[in-house]
Order: sequence, then structure tokens, then C-alpha cells
Amino acid sequence: MAKFVTIGERIHCISPTIREAMANRDPAPILKRAKEQIDAGATYLDVNIGPAENGGEELMKWAVRLIQDNFDNHPLCLDTANSKAIEAGLSVYNPVRGKAIVNSADAGDRIGNIDLAAANGAICFALCSKAGVPSDNDERMACCQELLERGMEQGMDPEDLWFDPLFLVIKGMQDKQMEVLEFIKMCSDMGFKTTGGLSNVSNGMPKLIRPIIDSATVAMAMMNGLTSAIVNPCDLRLMETIKSCDVIRGETLYADSYLEL
Amino acid sequence: MAKFVTIGERIHCISPTIREAMANRDPAPILKRAKEQIDAGATYLDVNIGPAENGGEELMKWAVRLIQDNFDNHPLCLDTANSKAIEAGLSVYNPVRGKAIVNSADAGDRIGNIDLAAANGAICFALCSKAGVPSDNDERMACCQELLERGMEQGMDPEDLWFDPLFLVIKGMQDKQMEVLEFIKMCSDMGFKTTGGLSNVSNGMPKLIRPIIDSATVAMAMMNGLTSAIVNPCDLRLMETIKSCDVIRGETLYADSYLEL
Repeated sequence: MAKFVTIGERIHCISPTIREAMANRDPAPILKRAKEQIDAGATYLDVNIGPAENGGEELMKWAVRLIQDNFDNHPLCLDTANSKAIEAGLSVYNPVRGKAIVNSADAGDRIGNIDLAAANGAICFALCSKAGVPSDNDERMACCQELLERGMEQGMDPEDLWFDPLFLVIKGMQDKQMEVLEFIKMCSDMGFKTTGGLSNVSNGMPKLIRPIIDSATVAMAMMNGLTSAIVNPCDLRLMETIKSCDVIRGETLYADSYLEL
Repeated sequence: MAKFVTIGERIHCISPTIREAMANRDPAPILKRAKEQIDAGATYLDVNIGPAENGGEELMKWAVRLIQDNFDNHPLCLDTANSKAIEAGLSVYNPVRGKAIVNSADAGDRIGNIDLAAANGAICFALCSKAGVPSDNDERMACCQELLERGMEQGMDPEDLWFDPLFLVIKGMQDKQMEVLEFIKMCSDMGFKTTGGLSNVSNGMPKLIRPIIDSATVAMAMMNGLTSAIVNPCDLRLMETIKSCDVIRGETLYADSYLEL
């Protein structure tokens, strides 16, 4: 059984609270959000320090140590455009409870992040795009092949490349939704793992609607074989849906208490 | 665009209130449940009078007239093991807002209900089973072919046969869930319409869990092409999920107000 992997998205420098805490090396707000997400059932925590062009290496090391020291080496996903900062984070990461995730490589300028993951025994998110939104699934699949080749060259296990189709915003790209879901099926049929920033789909929607459409999307994507996603684990409806789909897929044995686990 | 078709299940003689109302020809409880379901967005209303061995013909006629007279000929699904009662119901049914549905034929003793539907320009639910639960998708598909042949012989449009894979209870048949969903995909890939009693899946689960698992199931089934289901339209979470999946499938144009429509 392989339960769906949730990657909590709430330690993100786009939040003013987190940005300030990172700037001031103030542990409390970061530990608070880490705890909330772990309590809500997040398998991984994403640590997004932004572009972090200055001091990113030191910042990522600080954040990785802070969270792992306080939460029994909880597994992390290192998220920044600064590859050196990812490398620095990996150097202090403890994989005892799960390999680190490098977030992310793409088939364009950031393909080198695959090498970084390979050299450090990490998982790598592999965006099936060169630059921006892929035009269709042919382009996604071409990128997927390039990313896979690069990983193989570096000696990676294909299991450690988690392909990201790029979830697209419904408000503006409604007609692309089924194609994204179809790509997940194509990857799943080839035995590949998949991931993605789920809440992209509901970007710009009224706040009350977002958990509803995110939940519908994740269930449809899980039908097509999605194996993980970057989500807000504090979204109760979403987590209930993921747990329910795991029951339906047979990844969790049903018990009346399955939502509480 | 073909929006998902919901068939409201709440006029059912298994409910003591409805059974009594049917026995006494008391309109109020039936009209109340009809209104609730129509207000909640049910495309069709199922009218289940049970086995109705005695007086079923007269009862079905009464119920069909009652609901259609009071709700502007709202479309109905005639549900009983008594074929003569279905026939009687069809004789007074007004199809101005949608063809009647015969609920149901199977590939066993009840295959003749297809003839009834064909002779009356009705849709027919076609259970992909001969007797009881089919053992696997090979058996479902063999039944599907028999049902289709019978319909073709009777001059039916294949669009008017809605194939039912038989949704199975998770508590007891958890390991069969993905196969049922796969069968829906097989039907959809062949261009067939599908339906089923969705809430079977959550039978016996705690009341609070049922809307959660039913919603996850319907989203997964809609990913695989499910075109309708017999549901409780007063289950808000379920209806929100169905509307959201219709948006994702591109059957409804997205607007911030889509849940209110």
C-alpha cells in the first residue's frame, strides 16, 4: 500500500509572517505552522524561502535544522529558485524519516537540480515544462522524457522523480483541466510518480469555494493515479477527500475511524 | 455540454413516511420530498414504490400524476420490481421536460424492461448483472453486451440505455471499488452513458462519514466518465462536488456563482 503523500505548503515566504520570521531568524512562527501541518497529517513540509539570492544558503540550513530538530526529523521539501541554497539545506538534512525532496527541476534552466538530487540521494520534483505553462500534453511528455533521461544519466531511481504536470488555474484555463488530469494518467500508466501544486486550480476563486473545487480536483486526479500533491493540510475537506480516495484506491484499509488517522 | 444527471432517491417506500403516504394516497409527504429535491437541484426524481405486487399499477399512476401535476412535469424515474406498474406509470407520464426512466432492467429476469422502455420512448437503466453482484468486469461487460443487443433489437438509441456497474459497499467489498470505477471508464470509452446507486458505497458507515466518502466516490467516477447517479440531492457536499466536477470536465462554464446554480 502506498498512501497519498501530502506536502504541506504553509511555510512559504509569500506569507508576511513567515517572511519576517525568516528575515529575523525567529523560530516561533515557523514552528507554529510546522506543528499545525504535522498535526493535520502532512507527510512532508515544504520550506519555501523564495528566490533567496542573498544569504539563501545560511537561511535554508537554519530552517531545515530548526524544523527537523523540533519535530523528530520530519521529512522536508526544499523549495527555492536558489540551487546553492537547496544544496546547503541538503547538507544538513537528516533523511531518517524520509528522503529530502528538491523542489524543483524543470526541463529548462533548472534541469541541473536533478543532478543535485541525485548526488544527495534526494527525491526531485520534475516540472514537465521548459519555461512557463506547457502548451499541451505532447510538450509535457517531451519534457518528461528529457527529465527522465537526465535522472537516469545521474543514476537516479525513476521512483525518485515525481513528475509535475503543472496544475492550471480554472479561472482562465478551464478548458485545460482535463488535459492536465489526462497527463497524470499517462504518467501513472507508465509507473511514474506524480505531484503538483494543487491549489493553483482554485487561484482567484472566492475563499469559500477553494476547498470545494480543490477537493473535487484531487479526487479526480487520484482516480488518474496522482501519488502526491503540495497542499494546505489544514484544509479539512481536502484532507478528508484524500483519505477517502486512499480508502477507495485500497491504499488504506477501511475502518470507521479512517478520517481520524 | 452535458451536465451530470442527478436522480433524487428520496421518494422511496423504504422510508416509513413515504410508505404510509403511498398506502393512504396522502400527497403532502410526497410533495414535500419532491420539492426539497427539486429545490436542491435534482434533474430527475426517482419514484420507488417497492415490489408493489398488489395495486402497483394504480399506485404508480397516482404518484406520477401527483408529482408531474404539481411540479411542471418534472422528469421522473419509475422504480419498482413490478413491470406492469412501470407500464402503467409510463401511460400517464408527460415527457415534455425529459424522457421517463425505467428503473431498471438487468441481464437476467428483468431484461424485458428494456422492451417496455423501447416501446414507450423511455430511457432504461441497465444493470450489468444477471442476478446479484457480478463477479468481475468480464461478467459486467458480458451483461452489458446482452443488454445492448436487446435494446438494439427493440430499436432503442444506445444513448437511452444507461449502464449501471452496481456500486458496491466499501465495508465488505473495499477491494472491488477500483474495478467498478474501471468499468465506468470502459463504458465511457465506448461512448455509453452510465448510472448507479452511489450511496451503496457508504452503506453501514457512520452517518457523518457518508457524504464524505460518497463525494470522493462521485468525483472519481466522474473522472472516469460517469454521466449520472441516483443520489440524495439534499446532501450539500455531494451536490457541490458534482457541480465542481462538471466545471472541471468543462460541462459547466465556471463562474464564481456556479455552486448556486
